[in-house]
Amino acid sequence: MKLNAIVAGVGMTRFTKHPDKGLKELGREAIEKAVADAGLTLSDLQAAYVGNCAAGLVTGQESVRGQVILHPMGVGKIPIINVENACASGSTALLQACVMVSTGIYDAVLALGVEKLTHPDKMKSFAAFAGAMDIDELTEMLADLAKQASEEGGGAGQNRSMFMDVYAMAARAHMERYGTKKEHFAMVAAKNSFHGSMNPRAQFRDVMTVEQVLADRLIVEPLTRSMCSPIGDGAAAAVVVSERKARELGIAKPVRVVTSVMHSGWNRRDDEPDTVELCAREAYEEAGIGPRDVSVIELHDASAPAEIMNYESLGLCAKGEGGKLVESGATRLGGRIPVNTSGGLLRKGHPVGATGVAQIVELTEQLQGRAGERQVAGARIGLAQNGGGKKGNDAAAMLVTILRT
Amino acid sequence: MKLNAIVAGVGMTRFTKHPDKGLKELGREAIEKAVADAGLTLSDLQAAYVGNCAAGLVTGQESVRGQVILHPMGVGKIPIINVENACASGSTALLQACVMVSTGIYDAVLALGVEKLTHPDKMKSFAAFAGAMDIDELTEMLADLAKQASEEGGGAGQNRSMFMDVYAMAARAHMERYGTKKEHFAMVAAKNSFHGSMNPRAQFRDVMTVEQVLADRLIVEPLTRSMCSPIGDGAAAAVVVSERKARELGIAKPVRVVTSVMHSGWNRRDDEPDTVELCAREAYEEAGIGPRDVSVIELHDASAPAEIMNYESLGLCAKGEGGKLVESGATRLGGRIPVNTSGGLLRKGHPVGATGVAQIVELTEQLQGRAGERQVAGARIGLAQNGGGKKGNDAAAMLVTILRT
Repeated sequence: MKLNAIVAGVGMTRFTKHPDKGLKELGREAIEKAVADAGLTLSDLQAAYVGNCAAGLVTGQESVRGQVILHPMGVGKIPIINVENACASGSTALLQACVMVSTGIYDAVLALGVEKLTHPDKMKSFAAFAGAMDIDELTEMLADLAKQASEEGGGAGQNRSMFMDVYAMAARAHMERYGTKKEHFAMVAAKNSFHGSMNPRAQFRDVMTVEQVLADRLIVEPLTRSMCSPIGDGAAAAVVVSERKARELGIAKPVRVVTSVMHSGWNRRDDEPDTVELCAREAYEEAGIGPRDVSVIELHDASAPAEIMNYESLGLCAKGEGGKLVESGATRLGGRIPVNTSGGLLRKGHPVGATGVAQIVELTEQLQGRAGERQVAGARIGLAQNGGGKKGNDAAAMLVTILRT
Repeated sequence: MKLNAIVAGVGMTRFTKHPDKGLKELGREAIEKAVADAGLTLSDLQAAYVGNCAAGLVTGQESVRGQVILHPMGVGKIPIINVENACASGSTALLQACVMVSTGIYDAVLALGVEKLTHPDKMKSFAAFAGAMDIDELTEMLADLAKQASEEGGGAGQNRSMFMDVYAMAARAHMERYGTKKEHFAMVAAKNSFHGSMNPRAQFRDVMTVEQVLADRLIVEPLTRSMCSPIGDGAAAAVVVSERKARELGIAKPVRVVTSVMHSGWNRRDDEPDTVELCAREAYEEAGIGPRDVSVIELHDASAPAEIMNYESLGLCAKGEGGKLVESGATRLGGRIPVNTSGGLLRKGHPVGATGVAQIVELTEQLQGRAGERQVAGARIGLAQNGGGKKGNDAAAMLVTILRT
């Protein structure tokens, strides 16, 4: 939907395993940074939308997660609304916050995405992902995968997120249909490792070559470990304000959220557009732009093949041409349309509920020219794509958000 | 905040233990009824806000709960947003839905509250409640309660929701400060049992006398079992529409949500208003009415003493006079201001996430003159109060919503 919300400030923790920090410490750090970045104080916030996916299963904090983070910071009274949409929880929180300032209901609203995913019992982290689809369907699916694996002599679903099995199936279909190669997936991971090496908040800072990615441990064909986003903890926050408040603050280079389009998956036919395509088309129309006008993109590369498929759904290239696009260098820093300059989910990390807001952190900094070594020259328009959960043959929740200076 | 959302249709399941029904079946029943009541079809819905509190802990469905319910019904594509605020999850979903139609962003939005709380392992249900406060504070609190109980020879926190210990402490303080008697709490439970006996959707349909309530099993002094809301399952749905859509539908007697005010608890001093008072004051002002103008109230009687304290905070009587108010019969059907004509949480039941929307179901039917035996003659203005979780010395989330014809 069309919006006019100004991102007044952003902040995030490093994404990584934070053994000594819980939801509260992570959330606090991101919020304090975002509020300071906005030149505001906590008492200026009029409402908060808090996106988290898995605290109930991982930490036992099933309810009022936002209140538990904000209260010890001295923030109360204001409406605090907890929202959840699996890996898209953060962008869902941002969308709600943007609605409230765009309509003039509030002047300053916090959107927080936060996730504590690591746990001494690794199976707890995997359980959190499993909860992101219909658990009845999951049971059937795991049985199918186990059957398939025993036929192939593999070990499907063991000691990894079941979502990687889903991504691997989609990757194999793309390879078969369009001739995409495993090397193309490795190029995505290598490119994002180069970007992530320049991002002090990324979980992984080492640069990997295509060869190193290919030689990494196999998770499930064709995915090696570095083609899969890691498990980690983190938080990201954005303070969005109304036009009125932005003027009052005298923001030098305001970044506006001009549209955020959300769709849920449905029982779609194969010839129908997927949710990414659906969201992108609407978002471009509402922003009055085309894919060629976008300067920088943060997209949902939960696995390397997903990035290639998202290129196509976002209209950066024709269907089936995603492999060639990454091969051309167009999506690398310095290329025509740099994608995941933050390192993406693959390298910056993917603390589920925090991801959607972290994308906004990167894009805001890019559009304000303060992305340091990762700066995309002359960036004017940014696009974020964030999806979560599984529903039918698509994502349960998908969002495409467009920002511009 | 001021709103103008028309409740086009409402529907709910019976609240009770539904051993054979899960989130999906419960949600479906409520949604189908509400959509039919609105004279709409599922395809008219443009967005859905789904409130649920405990599915992650109770059923393992940690994420995308709304999608899991709506998808098998053939509802997809539209934005589905899961919201959570403990026992106030339902009214939080309603508020978000009302914002979307009041601002004209959408014409028809679903608000669903749904909860599957019963589980063969009863401790799972209790764990869900425990997740409604800061789990770190909870640990300390349980230790305190256990210490206190061992000194008193009781068994605090055992085989019951820890929230009843919180309510019992507040009840004892009210008795001490204002001379409120255990009989007053029993009068609330007896009154609500009379109301509930006329509500086919109530979990309990038997009428209890004050003596029977007092003679019921002691949970924690002064609360007997029938002064505590039960554990149950259920769903409630409301379809809210814009002014434009309401005209198109030609709704004969439109019920409007004119304001819904939400606050979170904070580190308040004892002499500051509590969240109920804070919400009520603002809501009355925004609706341009006073407590005397309200025809019928559904309030959050999670325990019988809570109803008495809420009378006071809502301004139905002076501080400390709540006991006398119920004793006077004013809040009984036929009295000056009937409260909890549905039977309230005590008798209709309290499937946590569903409660806030169920209050709107009752009030809408009352304001449209279709509450049958429970009808409040000439009801024009309804008020719902719904609170959830614990934060500092108050609720984590509190909402007061005013509806009028």
